[in-house]
Amino acid sequence: MEAARSLGYQVNLIAREMIMQRSSMVGVVTAGFENPFRAKLLAHIIAALGRHKLTPIVVNADDPVQIRQSLDMLLSYRIGGVIMTSASSPLGLARQYLEGEIPVVMINRASNLPGADVAVSDNAAGASLAAHMLIDAGATRLTFVGPTRPSYSGKARCTGFLRAIRNIANADPHRARHVDTHSTTGDTYECGVAAAHALLSQASRPDGVFCSSDLLALGFIDTARRHFAMRVPEDVRIVGFDDIPAASYGNYQLCTIAQDTHALADTATDMLIERMNAYSGASRTRVVPVTRVVRHSCGLTPTNRLP
Amino acid sequence: MEAARSLGYQVNLIAREMIMQRSSMVGVVTAGFENPFRAKLLAHIIAALGRHKLTPIVVNADDPVQIRQSLDMLLSYRIGGVIMTSASSPLGLARQYLEGEIPVVMINRASNLPGADVAVSDNAAGASLAAHMLIDAGATRLTFVGPTRPSYSGKARCTGFLRAIRNIANADPHRARHVDTHSTTGDTYECGVAAAHALLSQASRPDGVFCSSDLLALGFIDTARRHFAMRVPEDVRIVGFDDIPAASYGNYQLCTIAQDTHALADTATDMLIERMNAYSGASRTRVVPVTRVVRHSCGLTPTNRLP
Repeated sequence: MEAARSLGYQVNLIAREMIMQRSSMVGVVTAGFENPFRAKLLAHIIAALGRHKLTPIVVNADDPVQIRQSLDMLLSYRIGGVIMTSASSPLGLARQYLEGEIPVVMINRASNLPGADVAVSDNAAGASLAAHMLIDAGATRLTFVGPTRPSYSGKARCTGFLRAIRNIANADPHRARHVDTHSTTGDTYECGVAAAHALLSQASRPDGVFCSSDLLALGFIDTARRHFAMRVPEDVRIVGFDDIPAASYGNYQLCTIAQDTHALADTATDMLIERMNAYSGASRTRVVPVTRVVRHSCGLTPTNRLP
Repeated sequence: MEAARSLGYQVNLIAREMIMQRSSMVGVVTAGFENPFRAKLLAHIIAALGRHKLTPIVVNADDPVQIRQSLDMLLSYRIGGVIMTSASSPLGLARQYLEGEIPVVMINRASNLPGADVAVSDNAAGASLAAHMLIDAGATRLTFVGPTRPSYSGKARCTGFLRAIRNIANADPHRARHVDTHSTTGDTYECGVAAAHALLSQASRPDGVFCSSDLLALGFIDTARRHFAMRVPEDVRIVGFDDIPAASYGNYQLCTIAQDTHALADTATDMLIERMNAYSGASRTRVVPVTRVVRHSCGLTPTNRLP
């Protein structure tokens, strides 16, 4: 025992074991498990990590006590890296990892942390597709609905939508006469219900609404129909964002912008592995393409749907 | 180095490290992330483990390649235990853990594995509540819709429903004239759509339907309304099971049996910890109560809703 201790053998062995752990365990910080988009993204992140023999340790960032405790735990495990999908988990915690040279990749978040990489859906392109679909379907009084202040994605989609409308109006002022923004506190069904009550009680109702999440759009549609006896899309055209399973339900047939959760998960995992192999280097942002999914709610007919 | 080796020091140190790991890492095998009930249950399991300073390693059982690989990996980590929520992950894998004396707790699964503990929602009580609500609301031609063959929960809810109807009919034959079972391949929205097409195309349509999941019920409601111009609950009364967020959406107002995901997660975690402290002992099953959530779809009026 004396001999072993004098050789410092204990420390080295534990260190080797720790280094081995560091190469295979990855923290996945997420939130909002009840949002089907985030649940699907989480499933794909777990699958992508598994394909590279990496082990996901999932942290639920909805609970502040839990996140504090879990992140300390992740540090003590000397994990190989962290993927953060939550819009709500504090950046201060990401900074702690980066100080310990633990790679951090964020999905759909702002890229203002030196050393952290970002995989992000093409919000500008998605918002532009939404603007074109609504205007092509005949809407002239347009409104963006979403969390413009707290959420990076909400803000980016709002900015992209307003820019696209401006470009269309510059080319042809008759096609987009009025555009407005309605800020919500979140991206839930209930926020969509509240937004519909606020917007449809006004004298001048919008006839084309771009919601920054599908859940917002579902709440907006149900409220427009049930409380204001409006028809979708005849009286108000609706486009969402995400393409969650309920978007294809018979009752909604929600036209939306599909995020590629497979590609977001693969891109984030690839960037994480690159940084696990070589930590240094400036932050990188990779943009993942989105696609439009044309369904009944936006009012595009087979004629004006082309191309 | 010779001295250390001759003392067998290396082996002991690694063993101690492994034993430490074994006490804090827990595999969580789940599937069907797009089912909001399972996503919510997963969030609560992660939270419950966190409260006991246990670290969740999440395995997605939807992907057979991934599950095989992940479970080998969990074994190599010498995890402290496994919680299995998936109806689809093979019991053979659970047997492997038990052979290695790694505790296994299953949620909402059959309890036929010696040594494995089970936390299960009270399916019989839930099915009986559903039967009483439908009959109290005036339904006389009743049908159970759900996966009776592949799913433990589906089978248990079907059995409980038929037993409750029989008891009601024995007491008063006029109240439950006809009861039937319609087997589905799964518990998804699409399965509910298919079940509605099959059942409502018949000459004798059911006027009270108990669906073994809320997703099934949503698909059934949309199809009854849109393809058969039926009113819910006037023409057909519907009760679901789970209480997912969409059950409270304005369009559905789905009457349902709420599973207590908090209590399921806490019960499973408690049983796991008990077995991590003392592995031996026979399998135990703990039943978690369910509650009825009365909403518009079952047709109970304020009068017949009491008590």
